[in-house]
Amino acid sequence: MPRYRLLIEYDGTPFVGWQIQGAGVSVQGTIATALAKLTGEIADVRGAGRTDSGVHATGQVAHVDLPRAYPEYVVREAINYHVRPMPVSVVDCAIVPDAFDARFSAIGRHYLYRMVNRRGPPVLDKNRVWWVAKPLDISAMIDAAPVLEGRHDFTTFRAAGCQAKSPVKTLDRFRVEHAGDELRIHVSARSFMHKQVRSMVGSLKLVGDGRWTKSDLKTALEAGDRTRCGPVPPPFGLYLTQVDYP
Amino acid sequence: MPRYRLLIEYDGTPFVGWQIQGAGVSVQGTIATALAKLTGEIADVRGAGRTDSGVHATGQVAHVDLPRAYPEYVVREAINYHVRPMPVSVVDCAIVPDAFDARFSAIGRHYLYRMVNRRGPPVLDKNRVWWVAKPLDISAMIDAAPVLEGRHDFTTFRAAGCQAKSPVKTLDRFRVEHAGDELRIHVSARSFMHKQVRSMVGSLKLVGDGRWTKSDLKTALEAGDRTRCGPVPPPFGLYLTQVDYP
Repeated sequence: MPRYRLLIEYDGTPFVGWQIQGAGVSVQGTIATALAKLTGEIADVRGAGRTDSGVHATGQVAHVDLPRAYPEYVVREAINYHVRPMPVSVVDCAIVPDAFDARFSAIGRHYLYRMVNRRGPPVLDKNRVWWVAKPLDISAMIDAAPVLEGRHDFTTFRAAGCQAKSPVKTLDRFRVEHAGDELRIHVSARSFMHKQVRSMVGSLKLVGDGRWTKSDLKTALEAGDRTRCGPVPPPFGLYLTQVDYP
Repeated sequence: MPRYRLLIEYDGTPFVGWQIQGAGVSVQGTIATALAKLTGEIADVRGAGRTDSGVHATGQVAHVDLPRAYPEYVVREAINYHVRPMPVSVVDCAIVPDAFDARFSAIGRHYLYRMVNRRGPPVLDKNRVWWVAKPLDISAMIDAAPVLEGRHDFTTFRAAGCQAKSPVKTLDRFRVEHAGDELRIHVSARSFMHKQVRSMVGSLKLVGDGRWTKSDLKTALEAGDRTRCGPVPPPFGLYLTQVDYP
């Protein structure tokens, strides 16, 4: 049973999310079904990040054990052929030691949240960015974001149903980059809780709106109270861009 | 009859191109129809660049005369409301002097051609980039591109039906930028002939394939012979990004 590591891009729009659920089409299920056309068996495809419905990935990582030793390019090409027309693409495939686990071996996860701040709606990037028509105080957002970095109890930014054991996490990076009318929010940590990235972005947007100061953002974090979180923004601005391994 | 200058973004996928033609939906016609819902009259919307079917714009500029003086934001919002669901967005609108002509006042036009060079197909950027699966010699492309810069007879890179008066043009910029698996080809000139940008990109790709050298590209230019042009690549990698005025 050789183990394969997959590097995967997907457009989250038509999916219920990464993970197989009762109803709807998942990325995980789409890849498993495509692989079954190659191997004749349904494989268990394990991803590093369980992205929500509508969330995209340019650098999702998964592992899967196959019943026979196929060349790496055959696995990549077979998945890319059989997933069509669903928007999933295996960008790289490699045989890895059995000890490699896409989820549990990961030591870093990187997300990008894209916002566009201008009067006209984005049409080329429809379902790819969060459009905010009202002018934002971008300098205030750039200045405030890093207050969430470091080791904290992130209860304020944790979704109600989150199953993480502890709300204490170390946020390595929460930075806003600004180019033209686009804001790119870079977020890195070893691991995240459910909806944590979007919850933090939604709260930071209140700073851009002038409704919160940098100090209000810090106070919301320190409150450890989910009701203090800003409105959660849409999933289609969010991308899982990279997963790190030792 | 106040004159308005529009800065326009569009996804070229569903259009026959910028210009109104016998059959099919054009960007120009879509904007004119949307404006008619505001003014009650069909206006003549003049664009700076007549992009082909499938070609995108992030910075198309147009001018239009309206029968009454509407506030600028009203014109912008009315178009953005009435063009829906077609993927056109007015990003900016300003009243300009009657002497301003989007096409004839322009002194520079900037295009971007996007290519992705990797094994897996792009799914997030479907219809946004030209996918080339076979590995390209990107260094050779970066090195060769500037040989087309300068004042030349561009007959080799001119489509059969092109109506430009002279094939002699000054190409200010033809440069390849490389980031990850994406190639971004930046192309600038005062004006271009029909399919000139794509014809040059298609020929440069032969250098990436190892079929042409930098010297072959120069020889093809100097031949002044359309049959020496490389295969014309798809329109959906091309973007009109900026138009300059004095």
